[in-house]
Amino acid sequence: MKRRSIIKGAALGLAMIASPVVAQDANYTIGVAIPAATHGFMGGLNYHARASIERLEATYPQLDFVLATSGDAGKMVNDIEDMVATRNIDALVVLPFESEPLTSPVQAVKEQGIWVTVVDRGLAVPGIEDLYVAGDNTGFGRTAGEYFAKTLKDGDNIVVLRGIPTTLDNERVDAFSAAIEGSGINVLDMQHGNWNRDDAFDVMQDFLSKFDDIDAVWAADDDMAVGVLEAISQAGRSEEMWVVGGAGMKEIIKRIMDGDPQLPVNVTYPPAQIATAIEMTALGLVSATPVSGRFIIGSQVITPENAEKFYFPDSPF
Amino acid sequence: MKRRSIIKGAALGLAMIASPVVAQDANYTIGVAIPAATHGFMGGLNYHARASIERLEATYPQLDFVLATSGDAGKMVNDIEDMVATRNIDALVVLPFESEPLTSPVQAVKEQGIWVTVVDRGLAVPGIEDLYVAGDNTGFGRTAGEYFAKTLKDGDNIVVLRGIPTTLDNERVDAFSAAIEGSGINVLDMQHGNWNRDDAFDVMQDFLSKFDDIDAVWAADDDMAVGVLEAISQAGRSEEMWVVGGAGMKEIIKRIMDGDPQLPVNVTYPPAQIATAIEMTALGLVSATPVSGRFIIGSQVITPENAEKFYFPDSPF
Repeated sequence: MKRRSIIKGAALGLAMIASPVVAQDANYTIGVAIPAATHGFMGGLNYHARASIERLEATYPQLDFVLATSGDAGKMVNDIEDMVATRNIDALVVLPFESEPLTSPVQAVKEQGIWVTVVDRGLAVPGIEDLYVAGDNTGFGRTAGEYFAKTLKDGDNIVVLRGIPTTLDNERVDAFSAAIEGSGINVLDMQHGNWNRDDAFDVMQDFLSKFDDIDAVWAADDDMAVGVLEAISQAGRSEEMWVVGGAGMKEIIKRIMDGDPQLPVNVTYPPAQIATAIEMTALGLVSATPVSGRFIIGSQVITPENAEKFYFPDSPF
Repeated sequence: MKRRSIIKGAALGLAMIASPVVAQDANYTIGVAIPAATHGFMGGLNYHARASIERLEATYPQLDFVLATSGDAGKMVNDIEDMVATRNIDALVVLPFESEPLTSPVQAVKEQGIWVTVVDRGLAVPGIEDLYVAGDNTGFGRTAGEYFAKTLKDGDNIVVLRGIPTTLDNERVDAFSAAIEGSGINVLDMQHGNWNRDDAFDVMQDFLSKFDDIDAVWAADDDMAVGVLEAISQAGRSEEMWVVGGAGMKEIIKRIMDGDPQLPVNVTYPPAQIATAIEMTALGLVSATPVSGRFIIGSQVITPENAEKFYFPDSPF
């Protein structure tokens, strides 16, 4: 947000109360830079970015958007530089393709007085952005763990699939482990399925050959859950165990809605967090509402009762 | 948010993209319960609550609001029970008058399936609310401390006024102290002014009689800053030291805008955080945007250059 824009924004917020029609002569352009829809979660994120932009354009005629999707960090840097040079953006919403290569270019945007919102993956230097929006990895693990602890009995057996070895994966798994502590649940094994369908299939085949009594699986991600379910199905053991994935893939949510006993619940880590980031950035331009700070979106349990709220049939994810 | 409302809300968010006019047949009522405007900060908070409600009613015809202001915890509990019983609210935004007496009543609202947003003062039991919005007390102290460390020289002398002895005050002062560590600034004394103008006047008179070389004062709150400035003025030492308050009282912001050398900057702890809470709650009803979680509004430095953004001449604060 340039200084002049900030003042216009504050004035607009107050003016709109008295005269919402007249106030719409102040125009703002918001640049949105996100990774291309190369896999399920990013497909969902692209869908929700477009949906929120359409909603905002319909609600606030004074807002314009530039959306750029990038298949690599270099293209994202170029896209952002273009937005500043040719579209004179007032605010940037960016989900950094990678932290390191995006840090200096985004810092340069900020130094020009443009509002910066960072989503999900942080930059390598703290404090650059005005607003940070992300999911809650600790809550993601804890929420899943609480469901296991509440649902299973003392002595029941589970296996766990982990993601790519990262701090993020450690936070999730540590919180899951803490939540089941004292429940009497036996964790037979934990292996990395790397948030990948095929890797998860292989890991689960190995678990199935090693353990003849498994009551439940924490697959921790819906792409991994799909691989896990396939391995269980091929082993003919679908009646034996249930599976909890995560992030709300629509095919999984549909099965929860339909009451599939093999998929009792899911835990959110919403690709729609990009919508939250875009909406809050827009709110800061059309009103005097404070929107700088840090918003951590809570992880919620999706059950057959509330699944419809989390089901987006038009989304690719 | 009742379950039926959630589904309507999700459907509405998508429907509005295609047809914003038709979609406005789904109506929601948001209850807002806040303390009465008994002092400066709460006066500002009341002003910003009303301003955001007016903005939202103008923007979204499908939203209705019930605003209740309470002079004590008992009246706030009654107001909230009335909102549920007679107005059938879909969401509650509450700044608890006190944590303990509001906890069970708000929990009862949540158990009826109504969305709950809690602002600033938390409830005594964690995890009740869907959304928590608050200022950043650590950031408030750190930001002020960074300004002192950057602006003063090795060997300069300061005095500090603290608030009412609370965890909140400790967080602020600890962060301030950490930020000036290693700067060579001498903290001559710290005393509690209890966020009160008269107490701060007395504390500052005492400091002025004890110390004949003071370069700056961290008053940590604009009500205390007013008392401190009066004591300095009566001692005829206004040329000698500058003062940093906090929270953005409009008289202080005006003097910063005007370049008063005695008041170089201020640090935000915005009463407009109630607007953030109301706006985000509304967003969750009119769209499919995820708004559950925890939003901590960052503390910003107000300077002569950006003060206009933080100046609300129509607000009582």
